[in-house]
Amino acid sequence: MIGFQSDYLEGAHPAIIARLAQTNLEQTPGYGTDQYCESARARIREACQAPDADVHFLVGGTQANTTVIASILKPYQGVISADAGYIACHETGAVEGTGHKVITLPSTDGLITGSQVRECIRAHFADANHEHIVQPGMVYISFPTESGTLYSKRELADISAACHEAGIPLFVDGARLGYGLVSPACDISLPELAKLADVFYIGGTKCGALFGEAVVITNDALKPCFRYMIKRQGGMLAKGRLLGIQFDVLMENGLYFDICHKAIDQAFQIRHAFEAKGVEMFGSSQTNQQFPILTKEQLAVFDGKYRYEVWGSFDETHTIVRFCTSWATPQENVDALLADIAKL
Amino acid sequence: MIGFQSDYLEGAHPAIIARLAQTNLEQTPGYGTDQYCESARARIREACQAPDADVHFLVGGTQANTTVIASILKPYQGVISADAGYIACHETGAVEGTGHKVITLPSTDGLITGSQVRECIRAHFADANHEHIVQPGMVYISFPTESGTLYSKRELADISAACHEAGIPLFVDGARLGYGLVSPACDISLPELAKLADVFYIGGTKCGALFGEAVVITNDALKPCFRYMIKRQGGMLAKGRLLGIQFDVLMENGLYFDICHKAIDQAFQIRHAFEAKGVEMFGSSQTNQQFPILTKEQLAVFDGKYRYEVWGSFDETHTIVRFCTSWATPQENVDALLADIAKL
Amino acid sequence: MIGFQSDYLEGAHPAIIARLAQTNLEQTPGYGTDQYCESARARIREACQAPDADVHFLVGGTQANTTVIASILKPYQGVISADAGYIACHETGAVEGTGHKVITLPSTDGLITGSQVRECIRAHFADANHEHIVQPGMVYISFPTESGTLYSKRELADISAACHEAGIPLFVDGARLGYGLVSPACDISLPELAKLADVFYIGGTKCGALFGEAVVITNDALKPCFRYMIKRQGGMLAKGRLLGIQFDVLMENGLYFDICHKAIDQAFQIRHAFEAKGVEMFGSSQTNQQFPILTKEQLAVFDGKYRYEVWGSFDETHTIVRFCTSWATPQENVDALLADIAKL
Amino acid sequence: MIGFQSDYLEGAHPAIIARLAQTNLEQTPGYGTDQYCESARARIREACQAPDADVHFLVGGTQANTTVIASILKPYQGVISADAGYIACHETGAVEGTGHKVITLPSTDGLITGSQVRECIRAHFADANHEHIVQPGMVYISFPTESGTLYSKRELADISAACHEAGIPLFVDGARLGYGLVSPACDISLPELAKLADVFYIGGTKCGALFGEAVVITNDALKPCFRYMIKRQGGMLAKGRLLGIQFDVLMENGLYFDICHKAIDQAFQIRHAFEAKGVEMFGSSQTNQQFPILTKEQLAVFDGKYRYEVWGSFDETHTIVRFCTSWATPQENVDALLADIAKL
Repeated sequence: MIGFQSDYLEGAHPAIIARLAQTNLEQTPGYGTDQYCESARARIREACQAPDADVHFLVGGTQANTTVIASILKPYQGVISADAGYIACHETGAVEGTGHKVITLPSTDGLITGSQVRECIRAHFADANHEHIVQPGMVYISFPTESGTLYSKRELADISAACHEAGIPLFVDGARLGYGLVSPACDISLPELAKLADVFYIGGTKCGALFGEAVVITNDALKPCFRYMIKRQGGMLAKGRLLGIQFDVLMENGLYFDICHKAIDQAFQIRHAFEAKGVEMFGSSQTNQQFPILTKEQLAVFDGKYRYEVWGSFDETHTIVRFCTSWATPQENVDALLADIAKL
Repeated sequence: MIGFQSDYLEGAHPAIIARLAQTNLEQTPGYGTDQYCESARARIREACQAPDADVHFLVGGTQANTTVIASILKPYQGVISADAGYIACHETGAVEGTGHKVITLPSTDGLITGSQVRECIRAHFADANHEHIVQPGMVYISFPTESGTLYSKRELADISAACHEAGIPLFVDGARLGYGLVSPACDISLPELAKLADVFYIGGTKCGALFGEAVVITNDALKPCFRYMIKRQGGMLAKGRLLGIQFDVLMENGLYFDICHKAIDQAFQIRHAFEAKGVEMFGSSQTNQQFPILTKEQLAVFDGKYRYEVWGSFDETHTIVRFCTSWATPQENVDALLADIAKL
Repeated sequence: MIGFQSDYLEGAHPAIIARLAQTNLEQTPGYGTDQYCESARARIREACQAPDADVHFLVGGTQANTTVIASILKPYQGVISADAGYIACHETGAVEGTGHKVITLPSTDGLITGSQVRECIRAHFADANHEHIVQPGMVYISFPTESGTLYSKRELADISAACHEAGIPLFVDGARLGYGLVSPACDISLPELAKLADVFYIGGTKCGALFGEAVVITNDALKPCFRYMIKRQGGMLAKGRLLGIQFDVLMENGLYFDICHKAIDQAFQIRHAFEAKGVEMFGSSQTNQQFPILTKEQLAVFDGKYRYEVWGSFDETHTIVRFCTSWATPQENVDALLADIAKL
Repeated sequence: MIGFQSDYLEGAHPAIIARLAQTNLEQTPGYGTDQYCESARARIREACQAPDADVHFLVGGTQANTTVIASILKPYQGVISADAGYIACHETGAVEGTGHKVITLPSTDGLITGSQVRECIRAHFADANHEHIVQPGMVYISFPTESGTLYSKRELADISAACHEAGIPLFVDGARLGYGLVSPACDISLPELAKLADVFYIGGTKCGALFGEAVVITNDALKPCFRYMIKRQGGMLAKGRLLGIQFDVLMENGLYFDICHKAIDQAFQIRHAFEAKGVEMFGSSQTNQQFPILTKEQLAVFDGKYRYEVWGSFDETHTIVRFCTSWATPQENVDALLADIAKL
């Protein structure tokens, strides 16, 4: 069976495995204070054109989300998120576990707008009893979103402006950041994103690493004592170098973007193949996740040969499924799939 | 500089790196549901002679401690620990972060006793206002302790009995479990420990793995929904196979115990060398951490050539330092150190 | 100005003030262990025909909600609530502050259904990744709801059945319970409600007391150690007798129900007066809160003479406002209002 | 039986009961926004000579402690307290329930020193691994302490200085503040205390009120959004006027201090009576709690006639017991006790 069900089916880019093997018996200090972490931080600051940013490496996305959010909010504050946001749906209440409400906004295709953020904040303070309501304390968005869509530069700038007008920070979950930035539909660069967000992360787990997310804090007010928070939230990796080495490799010579680029090419090959057969796509994903809407008969063409994820039912006769590509997807797997799509 | 300052200075046992490389491009399902995790679980159950145990893999020790403790306690309960216990001292309040007090007992050499546990529980319920006091809800001990000491089988059985008389579970932090079980001073086997504890973990991070702790739950009452807790606490690794592969390698043919055995041999070489020179050791560590008490002049012999950890000051003229060996310590490093100790 | 803006504008029923004065210098033990609390508990058990119920007195509604919910849920569980539920909207994240998500269901007129509860639970466990989603651990409803509506006996029995099929408890917020039970639209008795709910409370703050809610636990599994929870949540009143005395007075000879009955009569006088003038009511409140939909011109009739609460805007020209009656509302205030309504 | 076991055995000062009765049917807005609260706040600001202080009324001590502490600390911070401090011992982990460790310092007679605070903070930051240790974020002391002792003005100023050198606030638990300020051993005034503390409270529950603590925040940085915190912690009283009325009465014409003064006089009568019979006192309480150390035979003199609290065992033959006086203690009760002490 060929797996297209997610973008974390394999290990890591071979260059990472090689570097881990090569450095394996070196002795380094722990907890992210080693030279590999330092080097990776420097490369990330450079890629972001954010020479003063703080960069921290965390093992996974939920851990990154929870640690960042809990470090920012006051106890009586909540985090604004799209209702489809990962933190609102798929983290078993990890954010609530730190004592905070996720304030959800209805989203279209996973996206929210600056106007929605402004209205949410305005409505809060306009309420005579606002002290009885969770105060919006920050905004969380995903780039790309959970359904593969992207904010334009203008949309992102508007959300950022809405946050800063209200004096609250913008946090961008970049678990699949690489796939977003290299999409042909993307009109924003990493340095531009780093300017608009107060804190964001560059996802490694889904973009070439064994695991790891690089949290980049550009807002000075959010920097102090973040390492205490990492430890308190159980996210301080003893052998921190494992994260440093991985991001050092990924950020060297643009490897991170190159491998994401390949995945996006493949995703669009798949999308176009479906569209060529008249299959409707769910949403307007511009990234490495594609969501064809298929009948039972159409699905039967793939069963037993490919794995995909059932995303939901579209109507009584159609199902939405997800095909993902990744840094690791071999072109022969895509070619096989394209051939079978052609048979629909 | 030769590092003896901790037991997590290097990467992983070469067999683990090799297996990671070899399996790297295989596709597996995520979140610990793959065949490598299954295989590792089976090996661990067998090694523990606990065929019905649940086994979960977590990335690190603080994460393991917090997830286990928060999954067991009621909101008004606390966890009993030695005052020197890792959870009481060095986790930036991670346990309190889940809403629970660490109830500390004075320890000698890091150890507590069944009598202390009984007295703590008795005193709680004897207090007329016990509803105003945190209720003891479980006991946490480390094996070996943070200072390298070991409970005897009788001592451990007594703590276990004290817990079970009171109807509360015993949790054993085994971050360095391998080093404890193979110590010549240890009179307890892994299956015996698995019977006395309700939940414990087999430490990987410090015993040959890149990272990872295998949580073993033998008490049926503690098993339900533990995976929800892992996700809620931010500890659900997307590519769970990374943990499965590592423990599969470590538990194959006794590798885990063999490599720990080597470290213990080296630690005792160092200890005996110090003792031969009349240097007093702090505490009675029987494991891979050794704590000589040295003068400034004696320390000068090592400075610039070795790294060690300053553990604390003993008196005005003496300092306690820690030398650690590990699965990775090359014998030539130990030999160099022995030669320099001989010069004291 | 005559206040109709809420049902907690005045102090307490004069009989309560009298009893507080009369018992003022008696010495009693603290924390709810006095004879007045015992007497009130006995009266409540009798009124509920629940001789084995545990009864605890708490100062206010948010405290009662939070303490009950935090005592029931496991860390990875959430509480199902109507999206209009008090805990979802107006408690500044107090439930999230204890680490739990409020899982909201869309409500009509503040009401949810057994079918919605069943579907919510079914959908959770049907999700392949349910371990990544907050598990429904209990259901919270208000009786009457925040908008004054009532569940019928059949509707309540169905929600209760839905809970018990899933093995989770039903919690009924009875902040205005008295006004619900005496409504002509109510077809359920207190003993019937006590059987259908696992835990509920009899509201005092809005129904005649200075403050206080009587939490009644009928499900044995929820009883142990609840007093620890009260103290842990900061709700253990030193002079617990203040709560006992108040509920003792309210539960003596049906005073609680008599004074609520009066308020309901008055609310319906107001409702009928509005309807007689062709004013549409928002929702179908059957209790002491009534929500006429008024134009700016109509509102002008009341301004400067009455206080009411602005509930929201209905459309561009109409506003929803709330008029509340209570145990304390003098009939002359109602008569004045009726006369002014007649002028519309 | 005559009760001396605590200082919350009775209701409230009769003037409070009278005022509650007199204002009972007035309509006021809720949540502490009424004119009685405003008046009480003004009186408190004046008594404290702190015209810019924020004043909030909470129902009880645990609620006040938890709300203040949780509003100040960052998630990775803890609160420094005497090991005998109320928050460390007798609140069922309420502070830990908000996610924070109580960092205990050994106390003598319930008191800690500025030097201890400095050393605690110094040691934290001197630790190479301080990010792995809970950061001291504020200091909590009780005035008087749980064992009735008092800080001198110099001692308090030194603790305050230690806090401010480190940039952390000082919080004074004044549950029995009145008894402290009027003690002949007290050399500090309320305005002086208001200057040295960043936030403190004036206890009502034990000093004449039915219930209630007036939190006074003098440090501007701690003022914003405190009402959100009160609601989030479940402490927002619907009929907030109940607290306003009580403190308004207590703060009018010095009633609070007058009634505390009487209690202190009585406590010293009791202390001197015991000392006159050669009974040793435990600790050096200068306030309304006195702790004679008595033999079983001596205790028998009081049993059946008086209630007292058993504080602990002193040695095999002696028990420490607590006799409390309060604003409510009738002199005839004291006279009876004095007569019986004379028989020892």
